[in-house]
Amino acid sequence: MRNTRSSVSSNRDAVAGNGLLDRRLFLSASAAALGSTLPSKAEELPIQEWMKLPGSPFVGYGQPSKFESKVARTFASLPGTTGAGAARTPHHLLDGMITPNGLHFERSHSGIPDINPDTHRLLIHGLVKRPLIFTLESLERYPRESLIAFLECGGNGQLLYQKEPAPVGVQAIHGLVSCAEWTGVKLSVLLQEAGVDSEAKWILAEGADAAGMSRSIPLAKAMDDALIALYQNGERVRPSNGYPMRLLLPGYEGNMNVKWLRRIKLTEGPTMTKDETSKYTIILPDGKSLQFVLPQEGKSVITQPSPGLTLKESGLYEISGLAWSGYGKITEVEVSADGGKSWAPAALQPPVLSKALTRFRIPWRWNGGPAVLQSRATDESGYVQPTREKMIAARGNRGIYHSNAITSWAVSDKGEVKHVYA
Amino acid sequence: MRNTRSSVSSNRDAVAGNGLLDRRLFLSASAAALGSTLPSKAEELPIQEWMKLPGSPFVGYGQPSKFESKVARTFASLPGTTGAGAARTPHHLLDGMITPNGLHFERSHSGIPDINPDTHRLLIHGLVKRPLIFTLESLERYPRESLIAFLECGGNGQLLYQKEPAPVGVQAIHGLVSCAEWTGVKLSVLLQEAGVDSEAKWILAEGADAAGMSRSIPLAKAMDDALIALYQNGERVRPSNGYPMRLLLPGYEGNMNVKWLRRIKLTEGPTMTKDETSKYTIILPDGKSLQFVLPQEGKSVITQPSPGLTLKESGLYEISGLAWSGYGKITEVEVSADGGKSWAPAALQPPVLSKALTRFRIPWRWNGGPAVLQSRATDESGYVQPTREKMIAARGNRGIYHSNAITSWAVSDKGEVKHVYA
Repeated sequence: MRNTRSSVSSNRDAVAGNGLLDRRLFLSASAAALGSTLPSKAEELPIQEWMKLPGSPFVGYGQPSKFESKVARTFASLPGTTGAGAARTPHHLLDGMITPNGLHFERSHSGIPDINPDTHRLLIHGLVKRPLIFTLESLERYPRESLIAFLECGGNGQLLYQKEPAPVGVQAIHGLVSCAEWTGVKLSVLLQEAGVDSEAKWILAEGADAAGMSRSIPLAKAMDDALIALYQNGERVRPSNGYPMRLLLPGYEGNMNVKWLRRIKLTEGPTMTKDETSKYTIILPDGKSLQFVLPQEGKSVITQPSPGLTLKESGLYEISGLAWSGYGKITEVEVSADGGKSWAPAALQPPVLSKALTRFRIPWRWNGGPAVLQSRATDESGYVQPTREKMIAARGNRGIYHSNAITSWAVSDKGEVKHVYA
Repeated sequence: MRNTRSSVSSNRDAVAGNGLLDRRLFLSASAAALGSTLPSKAEELPIQEWMKLPGSPFVGYGQPSKFESKVARTFASLPGTTGAGAARTPHHLLDGMITPNGLHFERSHSGIPDINPDTHRLLIHGLVKRPLIFTLESLERYPRESLIAFLECGGNGQLLYQKEPAPVGVQAIHGLVSCAEWTGVKLSVLLQEAGVDSEAKWILAEGADAAGMSRSIPLAKAMDDALIALYQNGERVRPSNGYPMRLLLPGYEGNMNVKWLRRIKLTEGPTMTKDETSKYTIILPDGKSLQFVLPQEGKSVITQPSPGLTLKESGLYEISGLAWSGYGKITEVEVSADGGKSWAPAALQPPVLSKALTRFRIPWRWNGGPAVLQSRATDESGYVQPTREKMIAARGNRGIYHSNAITSWAVSDKGEVKHVYA
């Protein structure tokens, strides 16, 4: 299905069917007159009310404009609970690669615990020479590292397993992925200090929430790039993201990145907690389950345009979206405007970082007719994001986890965008 | 003054005088027992109150923990005003390179205007073939770019010009610099659309605040990497940072990055506005002034330890800080623990990006005696951050702008940290 890019129209800027244009288009002057108007009265703008009086004073901790109140997470909880569920990032209203802390997705199993950082403790025990307890203050003495990484709930995109396309948008379907700069202490430093016994091959990580959320993680990952994250985009990790400390396992399934981390136990094998047996396993068509599918596979989605954003007139638009892979860097994102018949490479916004969200962009001239927009990511392992058809063929549709199929947005001749299977 | 690193103690980890250690120290197990304790009762932690009841529900837009209320900007306004002054980032309480939007520094000349994005307009006029007016909606049709960049007020660090060291810390001295991922439309695309007349060499940029803050900018910069920024760390630019749009001139003096941008006029020469004649010029010892000193020079400061953060016991610490340059990437940061007698290179946290904050780190064994901590940045132009002595010799101390001298923190034998000249 990786079509060549030569069978397209004779428009000199065209790079694939149905209006996809060369990504360098906007560096030339040929894109003129997108949406601007000439002044109605030569070179004058009215003096607005807010220019006539002094504005608001300073505050210690700032907030978004009151005009942006629609830019919020949507959330749902399990019946009878208030904090067991998920809150989703509004990617259709954001741009860039960083998710602001107030809008980072959240998946909680029993609400957000109100943790006092002075009495919180982290225990490292099990198959170690010397069990250790850390206060937040003692952890602050250790050296820190920072990395920009995505986090994605294992259940993100699960609506794509449904037989009919859910009539919703990017926030409902793919809102359980976000990206931040995380800073903390390398777990390997703490494990070396505790002294790892040779028979230890896994760790158990447990949270201090009422659900006692806990997962088993291969020791090799813990010794590689795992972080005890204390800071998120510069400031302390938010309560909804694990305050005062969370485990960060770059690229791995979201809930393994245990929030409100209180205990790490070194073990010979996986502990088989409720959170990795009754949940977070992938049910296959033959009734068997895949367990411990750990990195999130390569994936992408177009965020603009997407459902909820209506095109008002034909003409030039930028198609933009996000791509990521738990296996490393994104090497290519291709975009189709004709439902996968032809593809063109999008521009990737530098810096392209391993296991971080990568923003892609490509110009598109909408001719006012129907179009089906898709994106397809390739990562540095060579893995190519599958079609929904291919994902369902491999996994059936009884599962809800690790859904990374290509998402399709249909644009109608009225400029409305909706979720379709194509 | 760039001493060799060989004349230090025989401790195998030492790389410079007074306890500076090899930056790879923490990759070995030799750093054991920094601040951890053995469990008082084998392998048990108490069940805390917050583990016994479900936690808080989801919210649309999240906030920091109530235990972090001290992590706030400090601010001061001119007498008789509420919004003419500055709010400073608490870098001693942050880590990483990204500044969260709620804590980004702010310098306003007449408060924060309450701008309705639907009625705000941007006019491009003057020496152009075709004056243009943009609504926010029309600007959104244009292609976007993202970049991570620092912003620094031209007056940041001005306390270093004082004759005696101000008894304050990193927030008061260097809190007028921050870093964010900015996303918007390249100004060059809009200028090309307007059609630049050949005699145009400068632009005037004007804000929609009551101060009518305005600055002149060379056209070459406008055509290079200038952005009309619409997004800051993923979400819409905050009101305090220019909502709904600001000019972003990577590396240039902060207030040239005009907030609440309403007008760009192409001109033959600089307009000589009040904000570039009565202010933002550098008064030299002979009474003359330097005008249009545009990029911020290479600079660094240690954020941990720094005044307000007390060392409770001798032993191993991480010295950490921030470096930046308006001339490109930081190539090296050296740290001294003996007031500049000997220096050792710190580790630079990847990704090291052009015109962005760069986090540096180096381990240090405090022997419990007096120490004077300094950092010195070098950028890719080869420029080396000057001592305060050298800066004052060149510029005198009647000025307040572009202060980029080395900052010195003295650690007393009680572990208290204070600002000194050394």
